[in-house]
Amino acid sequence: MSNRVRARDLGIKIGRMETGKLNAITDVEGVGVGHVTLIRGEGPLKIGKGPVRTGATAIVPHSGNLYENKVTAAVDIYNGYGKSVGLEQVVFMGVIETPIMLTDTLNTWIVADAVLDYFGERFGEPPPSLNPVVGETNGGFLNDSYGRHVRKAHVFEAIDKARSSAGRGKVEEGNVGGGTPMTGYGLKGGIGTASRKYENFTVGALVQLNCGRREDLIIDGVHVGRDLVVPEPRKKMATGNSIMMIVATDLALDSRQLWKVAKRAVLGLARTGSYGSVTSGDYVIAFSTAKQKVEDLIKMLPDYKTIRGESYLNPVYEATADAVEESILNALFKAETMEGINGNVRYALPIDQVKECFKKNGRELEST
Amino acid sequence: MSNRVRARDLGIKIGRMETGKLNAITDVEGVGVGHVTLIRGEGPLKIGKGPVRTGATAIVPHSGNLYENKVTAAVDIYNGYGKSVGLEQVVFMGVIETPIMLTDTLNTWIVADAVLDYFGERFGEPPPSLNPVVGETNGGFLNDSYGRHVRKAHVFEAIDKARSSAGRGKVEEGNVGGGTPMTGYGLKGGIGTASRKYENFTVGALVQLNCGRREDLIIDGVHVGRDLVVPEPRKKMATGNSIMMIVATDLALDSRQLWKVAKRAVLGLARTGSYGSVTSGDYVIAFSTAKQKVEDLIKMLPDYKTIRGESYLNPVYEATADAVEESILNALFKAETMEGINGNVRYALPIDQVKECFKKNGRELEST
Amino acid sequence: MSNRVRARDLGIKIGRMETGKLNAITDVEGVGVGHVTLIRGEGPLKIGKGPVRTGATAIVPHSGNLYENKVTAAVDIYNGYGKSVGLEQVVFMGVIETPIMLTDTLNTWIVADAVLDYFGERFGEPPPSLNPVVGETNGGFLNDSYGRHVRKAHVFEAIDKARSSAGRGKVEEGNVGGGTPMTGYGLKGGIGTASRKYENFTVGALVQLNCGRREDLIIDGVHVGRDLVVPEPRKKMATGNSIMMIVATDLALDSRQLWKVAKRAVLGLARTGSYGSVTSGDYVIAFSTAKQKVEDLIKMLPDYKTIRGESYLNPVYEATADAVEESILNALFKAETMEGINGNVRYALPIDQVKECFKKNGRELEST
Amino acid sequence: MSNRVRARDLGIKIGRMETGKLNAITDVEGVGVGHVTLIRGEGPLKIGKGPVRTGATAIVPHSGNLYENKVTAAVDIYNGYGKSVGLEQVVFMGVIETPIMLTDTLNTWIVADAVLDYFGERFGEPPPSLNPVVGETNGGFLNDSYGRHVRKAHVFEAIDKARSSAGRGKVEEGNVGGGTPMTGYGLKGGIGTASRKYENFTVGALVQLNCGRREDLIIDGVHVGRDLVVPEPRKKMATGNSIMMIVATDLALDSRQLWKVAKRAVLGLARTGSYGSVTSGDYVIAFSTAKQKVEDLIKMLPDYKTIRGESYLNPVYEATADAVEESILNALFKAETMEGINGNVRYALPIDQVKECFKKNGRELEST
Repeated sequence: MSNRVRARDLGIKIGRMETGKLNAITDVEGVGVGHVTLIRGEGPLKIGKGPVRTGATAIVPHSGNLYENKVTAAVDIYNGYGKSVGLEQVVFMGVIETPIMLTDTLNTWIVADAVLDYFGERFGEPPPSLNPVVGETNGGFLNDSYGRHVRKAHVFEAIDKARSSAGRGKVEEGNVGGGTPMTGYGLKGGIGTASRKYENFTVGALVQLNCGRREDLIIDGVHVGRDLVVPEPRKKMATGNSIMMIVATDLALDSRQLWKVAKRAVLGLARTGSYGSVTSGDYVIAFSTAKQKVEDLIKMLPDYKTIRGESYLNPVYEATADAVEESILNALFKAETMEGINGNVRYALPIDQVKECFKKNGRELEST
Repeated sequence: MSNRVRARDLGIKIGRMETGKLNAITDVEGVGVGHVTLIRGEGPLKIGKGPVRTGATAIVPHSGNLYENKVTAAVDIYNGYGKSVGLEQVVFMGVIETPIMLTDTLNTWIVADAVLDYFGERFGEPPPSLNPVVGETNGGFLNDSYGRHVRKAHVFEAIDKARSSAGRGKVEEGNVGGGTPMTGYGLKGGIGTASRKYENFTVGALVQLNCGRREDLIIDGVHVGRDLVVPEPRKKMATGNSIMMIVATDLALDSRQLWKVAKRAVLGLARTGSYGSVTSGDYVIAFSTAKQKVEDLIKMLPDYKTIRGESYLNPVYEATADAVEESILNALFKAETMEGINGNVRYALPIDQVKECFKKNGRELEST
Repeated sequence: MSNRVRARDLGIKIGRMETGKLNAITDVEGVGVGHVTLIRGEGPLKIGKGPVRTGATAIVPHSGNLYENKVTAAVDIYNGYGKSVGLEQVVFMGVIETPIMLTDTLNTWIVADAVLDYFGERFGEPPPSLNPVVGETNGGFLNDSYGRHVRKAHVFEAIDKARSSAGRGKVEEGNVGGGTPMTGYGLKGGIGTASRKYENFTVGALVQLNCGRREDLIIDGVHVGRDLVVPEPRKKMATGNSIMMIVATDLALDSRQLWKVAKRAVLGLARTGSYGSVTSGDYVIAFSTAKQKVEDLIKMLPDYKTIRGESYLNPVYEATADAVEESILNALFKAETMEGINGNVRYALPIDQVKECFKKNGRELEST
Repeated sequence: MSNRVRARDLGIKIGRMETGKLNAITDVEGVGVGHVTLIRGEGPLKIGKGPVRTGATAIVPHSGNLYENKVTAAVDIYNGYGKSVGLEQVVFMGVIETPIMLTDTLNTWIVADAVLDYFGERFGEPPPSLNPVVGETNGGFLNDSYGRHVRKAHVFEAIDKARSSAGRGKVEEGNVGGGTPMTGYGLKGGIGTASRKYENFTVGALVQLNCGRREDLIIDGVHVGRDLVVPEPRKKMATGNSIMMIVATDLALDSRQLWKVAKRAVLGLARTGSYGSVTSGDYVIAFSTAKQKVEDLIKMLPDYKTIRGESYLNPVYEATADAVEESILNALFKAETMEGINGNVRYALPIDQVKECFKKNGRELEST
């Protein structure tokens, strides 16, 4: 059991909007998240044997057959150094037709192939064609990545969990699922989530954080990264430097609008200190469950009588950037120190040091 | 052994430029192509058993370790209904670092994963990250696609063949490699190739043809498709409607320029009658072996004294469109009638009918 | 009065779909076109004085205030060598809010500015912001382009004509409006239009043709350009090498769909022989008047019970490519020989030679 | 004379890199900036008469004829609500061939046309074609925008100034040039600039700031905007909500690389609090003077022996984001309160309040 806390537990509130009930992507009604976490072995890397620090995360917009009931979606690739699968078809067709899977880079294709199996085996008839959407970041600092330990059964388990939890859900954060071995700002990263609620809509975000340099980390404006002292890794790893950002909303937007929403995720990322490094794959996938109407939102806006064009999207943009920013922080706050291959260690964000740093900046964080 | 002929054997010459020696993508020095063709079984589809009509094609810019010696590349996605792997990183990084693989849609991810294995096993040390480039079209009309019969060993074999043939190369066309089960303009499609030579540079193209309606087929301007009579398939298949177009050149272009070259492939496609249907993945991947200099080309151009900007690219554009157009025709001319799953048959382009149709248009084709 | 004929008057029918009543973009209900043609002076170029061979063409989706009642739109830039104004906002906002103007390259910005005046003066109150959409091609072979002879009053006249003709209209072709001085395939080009009707929808196209080399010209598959004999220009002009393609439909598509429709225009262009030269600005702007429903179209399709996804767009793609191809031909068939600055002459497509060339290809064109 | 200070004068240092000598875009050798500022009249708006609060800013990569000696360039459009001119050709050709002009939205086209005149009149012969690059933001809260008071002579003056100052230059900030009437974060905005120097290269940025809400303003991590008290405008203006970001470097990057550099500008923007509102045109234009070699940079990097791929771009990214962030702050710190049309007032950033706010955050700013 983790004794770590979320950013908000310490009084760190990103932006001015309210969160959803769980402050998680699952606040968007119907959305489910399932993690499979694989941790076993320790010591020197033996390719194919371990140590294993990996997993998979499935995100479903609804619990049904997505191939039959696709949802509107869009993609923004801020920096395309990455092996994500299935994004181009989303751009052209404007929909996703499978769960969104997150995993370790070198597992991407096995996971995509397993998603096809899932549709073939769980829904009666294999589809003639299928566009799995798989995102990845590189966990090779701690994990036997080349061993590709995520197998078909794990993918099935993650999707099953996501579907059965859809609409009911708490989301584990930190060293779980696809985020298990990841590094964020030189510290232990992984999965984080958050949400925002405004008038009739909810925006939820979930990130798999694996990017950034420690010295650049900013927490709600405070340049924490410059002051943090944690042990240096014995061996510097260049790889492992990406982030997957998933954005869900219940507002019925079309794919062009969702594309613009997706583009706001990078604003939240920027506020945590990323420079979008050359070998960082910074990807955003946004989808809508289409349960809330734009017309209803417009009527609720304070300036609704004079609002023109698509300006009703502004609160959606704000919700997105803020939810992504807080998701990144949650990944850092919840992830625990982990030792992986060859004794490599990623240290958790030292919360006491964060508190001190905030104090120096005139801000007293809550104790928990 | 096929008794079928290439378009040019009949006197059909697309455009006004000369071909390379073999009229194949391998006329670009150093480029190699390797096919693995899997044909076994007949009768009703038994998923996982067959009948099998599939394969894989590998294209290598050189015979060495591409991860260590990447080549400049670019991508144009004319219609993004497809499951190609690895294209986004090409856009951002401007290089490819693996062979280009072509296969059947549902085999895409297994093939990508096997490319990773190839680098891990053939070149000493597994790379920490790798961006396999895999293109696909859907062979499900003839093949047990869901059975995914292309396995790791086949991928290794295709790449090995491509590497060992690099610089020495004839290229098989028609029902081979990734093109084995494919359909072109309602007829048997598959792999086709062609090349153009102009001053100091060569452009080669290779297509995996699986798109188009029979009634739309145009051969060198002649609306052949309107007149062709071939048996109708017993069952109409909507899937199977894409084309992968690979363009190689030895001219040292940067990735922005290669992107513009790649965009010309669709001109050749258009001239064979495609409307780029909704469910057609029409993709172009272009790369350069960088053996010939732009400066040398410019000096050879007739108007070199007044040429401004990048207008020296015009002959490269022309070569590309023409080579792609002729590659598509070669795929049709070389592919033979094939029976696949459930007795489904794709009939070869009836060359006699083509000759008659040309005759009606005042053009006597050569006999062979 | 021109004694020239349209392609269809000779029996040249592109594709298999029916045309609209006028075979013009104005077959899309509500659409209007207005030309202002400026032809005066002859002899040597005196910058600012002439000879003048220019004009402006306005295309309106409806006769009202477009800023108040915007229409859904999209853009495809096949080759971005051009000075078109206002296209990026269309990409992001998915609408156009002004008439689409076509003119000579160097007149682009004066025309855009005049469109702003139009809204300020004709509709009561100047808009706080406005996104004029102006396309251009370069008429400098015949026209005193740098003289920028299209002024505010001409723009007003073109828009007024377009609005007042909206829903009522024949469209002049050839040496008119923005197309006045243009060159197509080394021959006299200019404005051309065509339309297609299928089930419940109409697609109309209008082009301002200024691209291509004579030797590449293809008319309905016949390589006419290789045989044509017309006098060579005394001075070769590199500039003048672009095409604006406007596509209108009454089918209620969203902007992502219109973008994919717009991308099909280049298929029609390719079939007339273009290689999309380096200095050719090849642009497509597509808009919808949204009078016909997609749901109604689907019900009318022969395979409507099994149709999946967006495949109902296929006939829209076909209509678009064919209408654009025929528009290009109409521009060539209708444009007359013109002498411009410095005695430069562009010769009209010699229709007799076209007929002979078709005859050689076993096709007897109709006499007119 | 302004008694206002730059951010750095108060001890606010964005990021960890050194600035160039002047902390301005002109630290990139050869770059010049010229402003023309038009301020006259007061009281109620009389369209065409004023009050006038506008201007133009010219940025030149070198003092010569850019049409003859183009520079490599790239564009990133983060949010395409805007009327910028000439950007698409930059994407396709990878160069700019005119000064970059910045002005008020409705003046865009007149300015573009005047740039053409400039080349026609200053360099002997009118170019047959020219691609002016003009960026804009909307100054209509203070300025008689529709009056379009920037005329040809002003454009000439701005370019002349930029060319003659090239390589010698201090840059005025705040209410000058194109930035004269602009609004930033609900306060007086305008022009700001900054630079970073690292090993052998310099990156300079210049912004025309007109975006953001006051409550969102962040200065070096401090949420200043939440605490600021300034008088509310009598009339809320929705328009005026964009930012032009110009990035210059002397490092010889190709246009694909410059595109990725350009994409980092938005990271700096995000850190000042922008959500990229729907009606905000957020544009980046990056160019290179190509005086410094990438090979030299690589040798200077601490990890140069192990650096792979393009990771040498990372410090360029960092320099870009930081320089843009500081440019935005400089625009706010230097701009003075201005009254414009109809008595509308934009108040300058109250520096005393900023100091207090920093104090509350444990940071003592320097007095000046």
